[in-house]
Parts: sequence; structure tokens; C-alpha cells
Amino acid sequence: MAENINVSVVGASGYSGAELLKILNRHRHVKVGTLFANTSAGKRVDEVFPHFKSVFRQTLEPYSAEAASSSDVVFIALPSGEAMNIVPDLLAKGKKVIDLGGDFRLKDIALYETFYKRQHHAKEAVQQAVFGLPEWNREAIKSATLIANPGCYPTSAIIPLAPVLKEGLIEEHGISISSLSGVSGAGRSSNTELSFAETNESVKAYKVGTHQHIPEIRSSLESITGKAIGLTFVPHLLPITRGIYTSIYASLKRKIVQADVLAAYQKYYSKEPFVRVSDTLIPEIKHVNHTNFIDIGFRVYPDNNQLIVFSTIDNLIKGAAGQAVQNMNLMFGLEETEGLI
Amino acid sequence: MAENINVSVVGASGYSGAELLKILNRHRHVKVGTLFANTSAGKRVDEVFPHFKSVFRQTLEPYSAEAASSSDVVFIALPSGEAMNIVPDLLAKGKKVIDLGGDFRLKDIALYETFYKRQHHAKEAVQQAVFGLPEWNREAIKSATLIANPGCYPTSAIIPLAPVLKEGLIEEHGISISSLSGVSGAGRSSNTELSFAETNESVKAYKVGTHQHIPEIRSSLESITGKAIGLTFVPHLLPITRGIYTSIYASLKRKIVQADVLAAYQKYYSKEPFVRVSDTLIPEIKHVNHTNFIDIGFRVYPDNNQLIVFSTIDNLIKGAAGQAVQNMNLMFGLEETEGLI
Amino acid sequence: MAENINVSVVGASGYSGAELLKILNRHRHVKVGTLFANTSAGKRVDEVFPHFKSVFRQTLEPYSAEAASSSDVVFIALPSGEAMNIVPDLLAKGKKVIDLGGDFRLKDIALYETFYKRQHHAKEAVQQAVFGLPEWNREAIKSATLIANPGCYPTSAIIPLAPVLKEGLIEEHGISISSLSGVSGAGRSSNTELSFAETNESVKAYKVGTHQHIPEIRSSLESITGKAIGLTFVPHLLPITRGIYTSIYASLKRKIVQADVLAAYQKYYSKEPFVRVSDTLIPEIKHVNHTNFIDIGFRVYPDNNQLIVFSTIDNLIKGAAGQAVQNMNLMFGLEETEGLI
Amino acid sequence: MAENINVSVVGASGYSGAELLKILNRHRHVKVGTLFANTSAGKRVDEVFPHFKSVFRQTLEPYSAEAASSSDVVFIALPSGEAMNIVPDLLAKGKKVIDLGGDFRLKDIALYETFYKRQHHAKEAVQQAVFGLPEWNREAIKSATLIANPGCYPTSAIIPLAPVLKEGLIEEHGISISSLSGVSGAGRSSNTELSFAETNESVKAYKVGTHQHIPEIRSSLESITGKAIGLTFVPHLLPITRGIYTSIYASLKRKIVQADVLAAYQKYYSKEPFVRVSDTLIPEIKHVNHTNFIDIGFRVYPDNNQLIVFSTIDNLIKGAAGQAVQNMNLMFGLEETEGLI
Repeated sequence: MAENINVSVVGASGYSGAELLKILNRHRHVKVGTLFANTSAGKRVDEVFPHFKSVFRQTLEPYSAEAASSSDVVFIALPSGEAMNIVPDLLAKGKKVIDLGGDFRLKDIALYETFYKRQHHAKEAVQQAVFGLPEWNREAIKSATLIANPGCYPTSAIIPLAPVLKEGLIEEHGISISSLSGVSGAGRSSNTELSFAETNESVKAYKVGTHQHIPEIRSSLESITGKAIGLTFVPHLLPITRGIYTSIYASLKRKIVQADVLAAYQKYYSKEPFVRVSDTLIPEIKHVNHTNFIDIGFRVYPDNNQLIVFSTIDNLIKGAAGQAVQNMNLMFGLEETEGLI
Repeated sequence: MAENINVSVVGASGYSGAELLKILNRHRHVKVGTLFANTSAGKRVDEVFPHFKSVFRQTLEPYSAEAASSSDVVFIALPSGEAMNIVPDLLAKGKKVIDLGGDFRLKDIALYETFYKRQHHAKEAVQQAVFGLPEWNREAIKSATLIANPGCYPTSAIIPLAPVLKEGLIEEHGISISSLSGVSGAGRSSNTELSFAETNESVKAYKVGTHQHIPEIRSSLESITGKAIGLTFVPHLLPITRGIYTSIYASLKRKIVQADVLAAYQKYYSKEPFVRVSDTLIPEIKHVNHTNFIDIGFRVYPDNNQLIVFSTIDNLIKGAAGQAVQNMNLMFGLEETEGLI
Repeated sequence: MAENINVSVVGASGYSGAELLKILNRHRHVKVGTLFANTSAGKRVDEVFPHFKSVFRQTLEPYSAEAASSSDVVFIALPSGEAMNIVPDLLAKGKKVIDLGGDFRLKDIALYETFYKRQHHAKEAVQQAVFGLPEWNREAIKSATLIANPGCYPTSAIIPLAPVLKEGLIEEHGISISSLSGVSGAGRSSNTELSFAETNESVKAYKVGTHQHIPEIRSSLESITGKAIGLTFVPHLLPITRGIYTSIYASLKRKIVQADVLAAYQKYYSKEPFVRVSDTLIPEIKHVNHTNFIDIGFRVYPDNNQLIVFSTIDNLIKGAAGQAVQNMNLMFGLEETEGLI
Repeated sequence: MAENINVSVVGASGYSGAELLKILNRHRHVKVGTLFANTSAGKRVDEVFPHFKSVFRQTLEPYSAEAASSSDVVFIALPSGEAMNIVPDLLAKGKKVIDLGGDFRLKDIALYETFYKRQHHAKEAVQQAVFGLPEWNREAIKSATLIANPGCYPTSAIIPLAPVLKEGLIEEHGISISSLSGVSGAGRSSNTELSFAETNESVKAYKVGTHQHIPEIRSSLESITGKAIGLTFVPHLLPITRGIYTSIYASLKRKIVQADVLAAYQKYYSKEPFVRVSDTLIPEIKHVNHTNFIDIGFRVYPDNNQLIVFSTIDNLIKGAAGQAVQNMNLMFGLEETEGLI
């Protein structure tokens, strides 16, 4: 642990990339190496993100496998569909890789090709990938070479749902997941729909029934619980920059009270450093913003035979860069919270 | 119709009161008479709302039944719990009354007293009140003396749910209603929780299972459909000023397609001036802001055997002042859309 | 006045175009004819702006001088640089034209070419154009054929500055104008810099010393006052959708008090329907939003020998579409406020 | 440096107090001791600020000089007017004190009493206080017992103005300072004017000519430059949570170019760890949010014989808690940037 880990970042000019740099800068056992970018290549990182002035001076470079090979671990913060073109080569070179995109999260290639609307070019690497959700996959992560870092929405849905499903408190079908996301979740792009004047003072649901995180949530829950799961997931775009609010409605399997739900969460999460559960407080996004925490609250609602569960995360941290560093800490045997408090 | 209706407003210094004045000012058959307020009494209305400078100059007066009696109709835009103290006397004086608060919406006094946490002092008037939802109650409204103007959340939930329940497309139980509201829905008050710095960049669910609009939604749907209804309603506070976004998740009763749902809506709403339904577009708050429209969109989702329905309204217009004027137009035999386009 | 004016709009799919349609829809003496658009041609207007569903159904057409010729007046709401290509032909056809862009506002072609960074192709029409600021140009507007509708920033700066300059209360040089604008002022475009996540929780000054409205403010004030004017104008981008806040700092020419400034404003604006001046209240954007008013407030500050003046407008209404309709009303002998209250 | 400094915070339940806790938690040489609060006394700090759950568990205590005496340094984050009641006793007990409020910033008691509208009860302590602006007062801070931590607006105005005044680039009179602040600057209070629905989509100037930071800016600049200064300072309230944007307009004393201004800043700030100056970039609030940096940009504008200077800070960090910790680091001989990067 005395030695520093050499880290490189591919896609350092997006929101997740920038957040990653901010965390790595505070990390005591990391040396930030080469930073790669596509359209911003040739610019200095503090030119692309002036808030890094006096902090990071590197010049962003066009991606090169050679340059990446000098690092111990490569973070990939590219739009989905791009990582699969560079990961097999990095694995062949013996590098550890943490991919923040969606290319390696679905074991079922057909599902990937349907929901991501493209062909997969790195099917072997998919089988090797470990889904990087520490709360449910810690041991596998420790020895993984390729981490598929979970999506922001899936993180906010799987963590609160898994315990109550495993403990048999709720029905496996008919689950409704209503998620609200800040605009940074859509990435840093020029898109009239994401402009301030279009999103301010408004809300819209989008990709209803077609969002690429649907199979990720379902297959991960099925893998954790060993049961077939039926769920509806609806993402909504909100006029906030950061944060995800997820509200879940599920039918009760049997008569339960608040304490039963709390017990289910305590059973699985009482030692988790980044999961905070309350049986009284309802979560608010501002309590997790700029942190790696996921907050969970809930209400048993016998009037309609439902359990209502709420969770909040910062989409750029626990939903992306923070969880990626948490995974790195596990892969390198470091304190899991290093750089994240 | 040639003559003007004399209108007075009780509670003219709140957000709904101000919106009412804005609409009444554009209305061709209205003469705005006395404006009443509590803590703002003695101030001019354009002092309380400087945007009314050069538009309204009246001085706000402390409420007096005598002064109110000179009008043909009295709008009450007070916090719930206050209208019941003045309405019986106004009815005794033969005045028409439109109450924007919650005091006369629930026929079941016990439900009122449970959810509003106070005793009811005008139980007879409750029985006389007509629930002012024109889409389902138009004929009764035309001959009503006392209108209980629907709540903002109930308007956004009842209108999209009623047709699909009546047509037997969805199960009557296990319905989940996730509503998102702008901050003006909480009224104009000094409250740290509603301050900009507390609400900006955040979201929270609140009053989970205890919101006073729960019995209003359920009893109104039961009255419309003649069936027992089981639903969960969760309101969330959003960092926007105006607007409600309601997302509804319900189990399908039978195999249906988009066209079946569209047909259900067309059956009931094809001639409604303020209900806009689309089987392709998903609603957005900005499309209804500053209008009296309710927009409805939906998706049949066979994967989880659900129908997902979305609706949007401006909470201060279709959810309050606009619907109140729509009711007044009906009560006085005017064009239903007058002042509202 | 009994007959309707036939109106067509070129550039109906932008923010100013949409606002224009909203106003024209309420206008009692207007018939909205052909609506033209570029990239949105072929779509229905309520497809581009779903808030117009049930209100406007026209299909947007690609511009054609023939089609435009059937109207009495043509509003042009295109980005600057495009109007000059179609206006000469419309004038030749005897049409009245109101251009909301910048092509005809500067009599000095060289200034135009410097600040707008392009060549001018309709120099003769420029000389014919009347600067459409009713408060200072009402008589010329009434008989104009081509109106150069003022820019949003210039409207917010010229109206408060002209009276105190004309009355000799402030020095003609060293004036500082600090303006804050909502994002809709930048038009409806896909631009990463205007995305929600980039503009929310931030502010930036931009185009310092190079903004194209600088010569418009200066030359208009010089034309009104007959004096050479020296001013600094700095626009700032704010995370609001609509509205401009302008704060002006000027040196006093002599010892004055609040009443002197009020008298100057009353002298010129006491009968103006859309100018509201207060010697006590400081303006706030929310008081003018969605209205055609300009609010003015001020403080004499002898400690630093300055007059500080504040003004607020809705950039899309008094700063664009509302003022354009005000000009149309004047050109056609209608009530100046028609459609605007 | 090996030992930890014992720190207590008075007023830990406000926005500055919370920010202070966040910074102190990351600080490697601090032990957070007793946390005091008024109305929140008796609550746990993570109850008042749920984002501190799993981070801080202390119970907030009512203030007691005895309890405070066990610490090496006491931070006071109370509303102005309260610190003067407890500071003399703390000084008598030999404690070091850093006051984030305004009670000890003005040496001229009469100015304090005029602008703060109350009597001063600790006049002797005022004379002992050191104005905690490290960039201009570093040596005095190192040996100070009582630090008057600068106001947020003054920090944003003094740092950019001092070098160009000292170098004689601008006139000492007629300076105009236009500042824009996020709502957290007003503190955590229940106030209708600060509610979301009142501040969103709006801007207003306030306390024009009467703001209590006016004498602080002027007297500090006079003390730094040894010259009499004439300035106008106008604060504006913006719909953002955090951040201050300050735009300054000043007359040039002589013909200068951008490089002259850059040289002036480099002369004084080239080694400052938290001052970032650019002669090309114009600052944006988002680049300093959640940091202790102040960013400065500028334009020489010969057309109106002016220098325009811009600065941005996070009002809760460089404008309050961050600068307070920077001062503590200096007072205890620690690395000046500890806890602040």
C-alpha cells in the first residue's frame, strides 16, 4: 500500500471523467497518469474544465493502447459502445480495467444488442467482466480484471430492492420503479433537449419501456435473488444538475411492519460503509450530493398492500466515478473508503 | 351574458389568489369586486404583488360577510380549515361560493377529520357541495351553489385514471401514483424547508401515506367508477415553481394495446376543451405551464403486465384558479373556456 | 378596425416566434396566416411546440415570398443575418415588415459589419427602417413600412437611460451597464454551453466589449439625446429561462435627489402604457415575467456621486415579441395594448 | 504539527457552520470538539444535517464558555451581533477565536453601529481583531488571537481591486461594484422572500446603498492602499444556491493594456495558493463552486476609458468557512492549504 497506483483515464473530458479526476486527486495512493479524450484531445484538462486550474495541468491525449499500458489500471468513462473497441487489447496486455459505460454489464449479448441498438464486438470480454456493485459482489471484485461499473439508475434500484426481495417481503412481479435524474446523467453534449431553457421549470418521463438500464436492473436482481423478476422502470428528467431519486412501489407478500423491512436492510447492509438506511427519514437528494452514499428510506403501506422504498444517490459519484474508485480500492486491497469521504 | 358577474376573492394574497386575479382580469364577463386578505389586509394588491402594478389597484380588506355579499360569486383561496368558518353564512345569504381549499371535498367527515387533523364545523354545507371537476361533474356544477374545487394532485390523478378504470382496462387495486410538484403548491409561506437553498438541487418525497389528497383521489374515483379502489399516492417536492407531473403504474386486467387505451380516453374526453391525450407523446410540464390544460400520455407495458399513465398540469391553473374559473363559467352559463385561453 | 389583419411569421419555431404566436392568438384583430420555418418546415407547429396542441394546427412551411405576400404584415423572427435576404423583396411587394433580428437596427453599415461579423446585403432597406421603440419613436412607427424591432438588452438599457441623459442628470461618459439575461435570450439551439448542467448554479459574463448590442444602445441613445455617449455594456448569462435585469451606474452631473429622477421619468413616461417607474421599489424580474412591462427603479447615491438605475423586462415579450406586436398595433392604428394585457 | 488542534464551533447548524464541519472533517490536524447551536441545541448534528449521517454524531449543545474553553480555537458562525457577546470572555480565557460574522471587521465603531443598526458591546476586542484576508494580512494573521473573517462580498471585491488600485491603474473614485449572490448567502432562515417560489426565475438588487458590507470593502481597500476610495456596491440575489459573481467597473487613470493589468495581479498574487488570475478567461461561478479559489478575469475597455474586472468565489468557502480554515492554518503554523484542496 505504500506504493502509488498508476491510473489512466480514457474519456477524461466528460462529467464522469471530471468527477473521477476530482476523487483521484484526493486519493492518497494514486498517481494520475495519462488522460485520454477524443474531441478534446490536444487541450489541457484545465482548459476543458477551468475549475481544475492550479490542480491538473496535463494535456489530454488521443487514446493509445501503448500509452495506457504504462498504468496499473485504466478507467474508461466513454459513451457506451466505445469501450468494447479498446478493452480486449488492454486485457491482453494484462491491464486492469474499470469501465463506467454499459458495454460489459449484460451477460446476455442479445439483450445488449436490443437495448443498446448496436452490435457487440467484445463478447469474450463480457464473460470475464465482474459487475462492480461492491455491496453484492465484493469478493469477485477483489480478484477481477475487468469491472463493469453499474449504471446510475441500476445502482439506485438494485441496492434498495435486493434485500427485500431476498427476504421474501415483496412480490417478484409487478414492481414499479419511478426514477428522477439530474441532467448531468445524460452526459456532456450539445442537445437542444438538454438546454437550460428546455429543461428548467419542467419534468418529463423518457425512454418509457425502452431504457437500456431496464435489463441491467432486472438481470442483476435475478442474479442476486435467483428468482425471475418483473419490473417497470421509468426514468424522468429533472431540472437539477446532479442526483437521482428513485421511488419503488411493490406488493407485499405477507403482512409486515416497518421493523421487518429495517431488519432486512440491516441484515445485508449494517456494515456497508456507503449505505445509509433509516426507517423514519425519507431520503432527499441534497443529503447525498457530492458523496458516495446511497440513502434508503421506506414505508409499509397496508392500505394498498404495498411497500414503498426510496433511494437517493449522486449520479456522478455512487452512480459512476465514486463507485468506480470504490471498486479500484477493492481490486488493489486498499481501504474501501479511501478518497471517498 | 351581456351583464358582468360581480366577483369577490377571499385570500387574494396567496399564489392561487394571485393567479385567480390574473385570469379574472382577462375574463370578459367579470367585474372584480372586493378582495379580502388576512395578514395583508390594508395593503394594496399591487403592493403585495408588484407585478399587478398598473393592473389592479384595490386595497385588500379584512374579510367581512357584508362586503362579500355584494358579489354574485365568492372565490375562497384560503388555507384549508378556514373556509368552513365563512361558507355557511355566505350560503345562507344566497351567494354562490367556489372554495379552492379542501374543506368541502370529502363527503365523509371522519376521513376529513383524520387526514386534515382538525374538526369540521360546517358539516351540512359539505353535503351540499359539488366536487368541481367539470370533466366528470359538469351537469351538477351548472346548478351548484357551493363548489369544492378539486385539489391539484387529485386533478392530475383522477382525470387520467377514471376512463381506464371505468373501461375495465386496469385492476382496481395496487395502483401506484407517483406525483411531482413545484414549490408553489405548498402555498406562500415562510418555511425554511421551502427556501431556495433547501429545495434547489434536491428532491424529496413527503407525507408518504398521510397526504390529505389520498382520500380525495380514492373517494372521487370510487364515486365515478362505483368500484372500491386501492391506491398508493406519493407526492414529491421538486425544484420548480409551478407544475405537477403524475406517473401512474397499474396492473392490466386483460391483454390490451395502445389503441385500447386511446379509445378509452377518447370515449370520455374527445370533446373536453382542456384535456389533451396523446398515444405517442409523453407529457412534459412545460407544455401545460400557464395553461388550463391537462396533458395525458401512456404506455401499455406487457413485460410487467402494466399500464403506465402520465399527466401534467399547472398546479395553480388547472390545479386551482383555472379550474375554479372553469367552474364559474359553467355555473353562470358562460362559454366554458372564457378567460382560460 | 373591424377587419382582421392577416399576419404571417417567418421563423415560427424559435422562442420569439412561439411567444409571438401566443400573443397573436389572444389578439382580437389578427388572423394568423402562414407560418414559416427552416429546419422545422414540414412539421406542424404543435408538434414543434406541444404546448400549442389544440391551439395551433398549421403546418410550418419553408419560406416563400409568394406565400408571405398574402399577408398584411410579416413578422421575421430569424437569427440575425437572415432577414436581410428576404426583406427587400417583401418591401418591393408592398408588404409591411417587422424584423425581430438585428439586421436593420444600425444605420451605420460599417458598425453592423464589425459587430455582426458579416457583410450587409440590404443596405437600402436599412435606411428605410424605423427603430421600433414606441416610447421614443411612436410617430415614425405609425407610418413605417419596415420596423427594426429593438434588441432585448437595448430595450432594457435605452428606456431607463434616455430620460436622465436628456434631462442632464448624469454624465454622458463613463456609464456602466451590467445586464443579466435568462438563457432563452440565446435562442433555441443545441449548444453544450447552454445545457442545463453547464448553466445551472453558475453565472458568467460573456462577449465583454464585443456584444452586438453595444452599438445599438449607444447609437440609439445618441440619436435620442443628440449627444455623444460613452458606455460599457456587459451581459451576463444566468440560470433562469426568461427575463433581463439591467443595473446601470452613472456619474451625477450635479447634486440631485430622488425626486429629480422621478420627475425626469414622469416627464417622458407618465402616459406610457408599458413603462412602470417607482422611486421606492427596486425592480425584480418576476414582476415583469410574461408581461410587456418594463419596470424601472433607481437610487441617487451621493457617497460615490452616482445615479444607480435598475430595469427589468421579459426578454421574449418587451424584449422581442411583445414589443413587435406593440409596433404592429401602432402601424395599423389599433389600441397599442391590444393582445398585450 | 503532529498533535491535533482541538476545535469547537459556535453556530454549527447554519450553512457556514455545516461547511466548516465538512472542511474540518477532511483536515488532517484537527479534532472536532464541542459543537454549539441555539435553536437546534439538543439535536444531533446529523439530525439537523442528514448529509452528515455516518460522518458526525455529536449532539449540538447550548453555548457555554466553559465547554468552549477546552478547545484551542473557537470558530463562531453566528449571525452578526451575537459574537460580540461571547468573544471578550473567550479572549480573557486565552482562546484563539475566528469569527465568521461582521462584529469585528470594522475598526470604526460608529460605522458598525450605522450599518449594522445596533450598538457594539465589545469595542476593545474590535481593536485587537485582525482582518482575516490572508492575501493582504498574512503576517498579522499568523500571530493573531482574534480573527475577523471577511464577509463574502468583501472577499470578492477587495482581492480583485487592491492590486489595480495600488498600482495606480484605476481612479480611486467612481468605482462601481455589481455583485450577484446565491441564496445561501442570506443564511438558513424561514423567510418568504427566500422561498423557492419567490426567488426562482427572478433576480433583484437589494439593500442598495445600505448593505453592511459597503464600509468593510471601502475601509479595507483604504487600509491596503492608503488612499481614500469612492465606490458603489450593489448586491443582487440570484436563483442559485452557492456562489458570488462580482463585476467591477472603474475609470482608467492612464492608457493601459491587458498585460499591464496582468502584471499588477502577478506582482501580488503569483504565489497565492487560492487566487487564480487569467487575462483571457472570464470567470464563471461553476469553476469555483465547492472550492476555496477566487478566480479573477478582466478587460481593458478603452472605448469608455474603463477597466472591467470580474471575480468569482464560493460564498460558503472562500467567502466564509474555507477562508476561516485558511486563517486557522496560518495561526497554527500549518500548511495554508490543509483541508482546502
